[in-house]
Amino acid sequence: MGNEKDFVKEITNIEEDFARWYTDIVIKAELADYTDVKGFISIRPYGYAIWENIQNYMDKKFKEHGVKNLSMPVLIPENLLNKEKEHVEGFAPEVAWVTIGGGEELEERLCVRPTSETIFSTMYAKWLSSWRDLPYKYNQWCNVLRWEKETRPFLRSREFLWQEGHTIHETAEEAQKYTLEMLDVYADVIENLLAIPVLKGRKTPTEQFAGAEATYTVETLMHDGRALQAGTSHYFGQNFSKPFNIKFQNREGKEEYAYQTSWGSSTRLIGAVIMAHGDNRGLKLPPRIAPIQAVIVPVAMHKEGVKEKAEELYKRLSAKYRIELDTREQYSPGYKFNDWEMRGVPVRIEIGPRDIEAGKCVIVRRDTAEKIEVNLGELEVKLNEILELIQQNMYDICKKRVEEKTTIAKNMEEFTKNIDENQGYIKTMWCGDAKCEEKIHELTGAKSRCIPFKQEHISDTCVCCGKPADKMVMWGRQY
Amino acid sequence: MGNEKDFVKEITNIEEDFARWYTDIVIKAELADYTDVKGFISIRPYGYAIWENIQNYMDKKFKEHGVKNLSMPVLIPENLLNKEKEHVEGFAPEVAWVTIGGGEELEERLCVRPTSETIFSTMYAKWLSSWRDLPYKYNQWCNVLRWEKETRPFLRSREFLWQEGHTIHETAEEAQKYTLEMLDVYADVIENLLAIPVLKGRKTPTEQFAGAEATYTVETLMHDGRALQAGTSHYFGQNFSKPFNIKFQNREGKEEYAYQTSWGSSTRLIGAVIMAHGDNRGLKLPPRIAPIQAVIVPVAMHKEGVKEKAEELYKRLSAKYRIELDTREQYSPGYKFNDWEMRGVPVRIEIGPRDIEAGKCVIVRRDTAEKIEVNLGELEVKLNEILELIQQNMYDICKKRVEEKTTIAKNMEEFTKNIDENQGYIKTMWCGDAKCEEKIHELTGAKSRCIPFKQEHISDTCVCCGKPADKMVMWGRQY
Repeated sequence: MGNEKDFVKEITNIEEDFARWYTDIVIKAELADYTDVKGFISIRPYGYAIWENIQNYMDKKFKEHGVKNLSMPVLIPENLLNKEKEHVEGFAPEVAWVTIGGGEELEERLCVRPTSETIFSTMYAKWLSSWRDLPYKYNQWCNVLRWEKETRPFLRSREFLWQEGHTIHETAEEAQKYTLEMLDVYADVIENLLAIPVLKGRKTPTEQFAGAEATYTVETLMHDGRALQAGTSHYFGQNFSKPFNIKFQNREGKEEYAYQTSWGSSTRLIGAVIMAHGDNRGLKLPPRIAPIQAVIVPVAMHKEGVKEKAEELYKRLSAKYRIELDTREQYSPGYKFNDWEMRGVPVRIEIGPRDIEAGKCVIVRRDTAEKIEVNLGELEVKLNEILELIQQNMYDICKKRVEEKTTIAKNMEEFTKNIDENQGYIKTMWCGDAKCEEKIHELTGAKSRCIPFKQEHISDTCVCCGKPADKMVMWGRQY
Repeated sequence: MGNEKDFVKEITNIEEDFARWYTDIVIKAELADYTDVKGFISIRPYGYAIWENIQNYMDKKFKEHGVKNLSMPVLIPENLLNKEKEHVEGFAPEVAWVTIGGGEELEERLCVRPTSETIFSTMYAKWLSSWRDLPYKYNQWCNVLRWEKETRPFLRSREFLWQEGHTIHETAEEAQKYTLEMLDVYADVIENLLAIPVLKGRKTPTEQFAGAEATYTVETLMHDGRALQAGTSHYFGQNFSKPFNIKFQNREGKEEYAYQTSWGSSTRLIGAVIMAHGDNRGLKLPPRIAPIQAVIVPVAMHKEGVKEKAEELYKRLSAKYRIELDTREQYSPGYKFNDWEMRGVPVRIEIGPRDIEAGKCVIVRRDTAEKIEVNLGELEVKLNEILELIQQNMYDICKKRVEEKTTIAKNMEEFTKNIDENQGYIKTMWCGDAKCEEKIHELTGAKSRCIPFKQEHISDTCVCCGKPADKMVMWGRQY
């Protein structure tokens, strides 16, 4: 199991090879593992506990917005997938098909859901009859499959866990409003729970969800300056309700097609946490989602009363916090310090014979490495304060990164220079032409992140073609 | 939308056709619905909320027993499924195969998991190294597919939601003990949450899980006297750890194969609740899992102050209970009473002008139809009392049914007579020969439910062959 040096050596330097650093963390911190099924991961208990913490918070928020959970079939018949033209074009190439069931070739093949607009739409058409039934605000927590060619744990994997909300409304206005409301839920979760600032805006038509009238996004910036789309919310208008026949009798007694939204976020958020906060010592978890908020490491555990005192603290703190007590005898305290730092635990509590004598313990912050002496009587209060400080500090660090890595470009020369030197978000004017997006991508590898809600006037012309432009767009290389 | 009579007519009489009554309830109470995918259901929000209440309670219990959640791939390569001989024979005939992914024929076909022993075993073999790592107590909440020929919502459907726990241990004794511990968790959930008494015991070898050394079960009895297996817990010994190579270095420094368990329960429990408690007025939900514990129905809602008072009560009670307020203007109070009874809401609270004047309201129990006048000031306390009484009464009714429907048979004549007249559990002695089980099934349609933990001596000979017998077995026709 080795000494301190060996231990740190096992993780690639974050500045040298960020991609390898990332997979090192995923594997060593036991967040996930590769399986015998190519492109499929197993999310291990430590990683899954992060997901549970995200789920608990998000699900409560959804319910505050009137959402109810349900469950739809995992398999979708081919004819349903084909009903909305753009949708099938977007998803058909990357689905997995079930062709045999119960020993027999199926008459119609069934795809494992890549997303469930089609099946929700079918059921909504069956259930809906009057405006009095509306709105339907339903969500499911489930697995989906997308047969990606290149995969990476959490970020892009053939199976992932997510939630997909699907709503239908009486009016376009209500549906549009709700689309943005749910985007705000994502922003809340990502900023307040995951301690990652978001950039909110609307996707350009090229980057829209297949079949949507408008796609809104929350974008985040990772340690290496690449962007990661962390959640999206779509307004469909009547694009699905027409082919799927989702009709209701409106207040005037006339038949009308419903107005629809959908919104999704996934275990990708765990990837965002790893890449936004991690450092050369390993994973760094925001206290609000850390499966272990503080680990108690007894020092000189063989000395009389040390283990007992540690156990007493463990019991006391467990009433209020998610606590681990590390009494493993085969490891030195030094090894344990490194181990828990690598696993991203926000706070370490050291307690040894001298501490006990003085009625104190030492709290060590994962984010700053600061050591703080705390009277045992004040431990609960202090721990709470310190966890809050860590949560805030982690957010601030990311916020500062966004500020430092957001640059303005008025022409392609500036664009290329900025992104090559600095990565990050490039802020430009854009004429609205998809060809300019394509050209920018070819030249720089960057894609439009979004048309931010907060618009600024950078210049009068498109960064790419020089034609008149009135939209400000954020660009960036992406995960 | 009709009047009271029309409404009740829509549900088949429970004594005339229990099977049709069951599907009527599932559909009318909006617990689930059929979909465009044959044999697959959608669990609607009202049904799913029951599942969430079961999950919350059960998941907490699991965690008290040291269980951690994780996520394993939904697809399993054919070669993995084939590794344990009995297991593949049991499951291969009813799996669904993915043969195409991302537009290409797969080199090896992948089955959608019918259960995940094989994939857990593969990962456990990868992760495990020393006795210090043990035990692993992991569980996943997920969907599984079994290509059943005849399907019924919740009871037998091609896809269902469940939890599957998989553990490995250092010794056989520890694993065996844990197998029974988890069976007790199921018994707790089913008796205390679902208000259904269970019969605990061991399955006969014929009825064991494919690949298990021992299968334990909690059996329940439905309204019509048929049995329903509500949860099972399996001890595998080293049956999987050997072919899957799940080895560890034991305390003596030698390599040893781990001892394994698995245990599962599913959305079938919702079917059990429907069939154990329902009556001719519809669904009847135990308060502890009811998505709506009490519904407030204002009477003479147009009169001044009624709606306001109802809203005030709704706010007050919502702080502590799951409450619905029915202010729909298109329906009469009478219609609403029937509607909520049919949906199984344990308590209805009626409030009208005269009640308000008297500072009272009327509580109506779903289980007994009893009307109770309650002072508004005491509402929280009274509601709590009444919900507890209902929960207990529902359990008692089921308990009484089990007592009335459990009969003794010393020979096949008695067996046939009892089961034809009374359904229920038939208690007999059994010699241990699988041929007797087969014969009993042919003659009576009954299968062995289990060898109950609580054994009694009924007679000296097997009910079927008359040979010496020392095991008491419970039999019954099953769902």
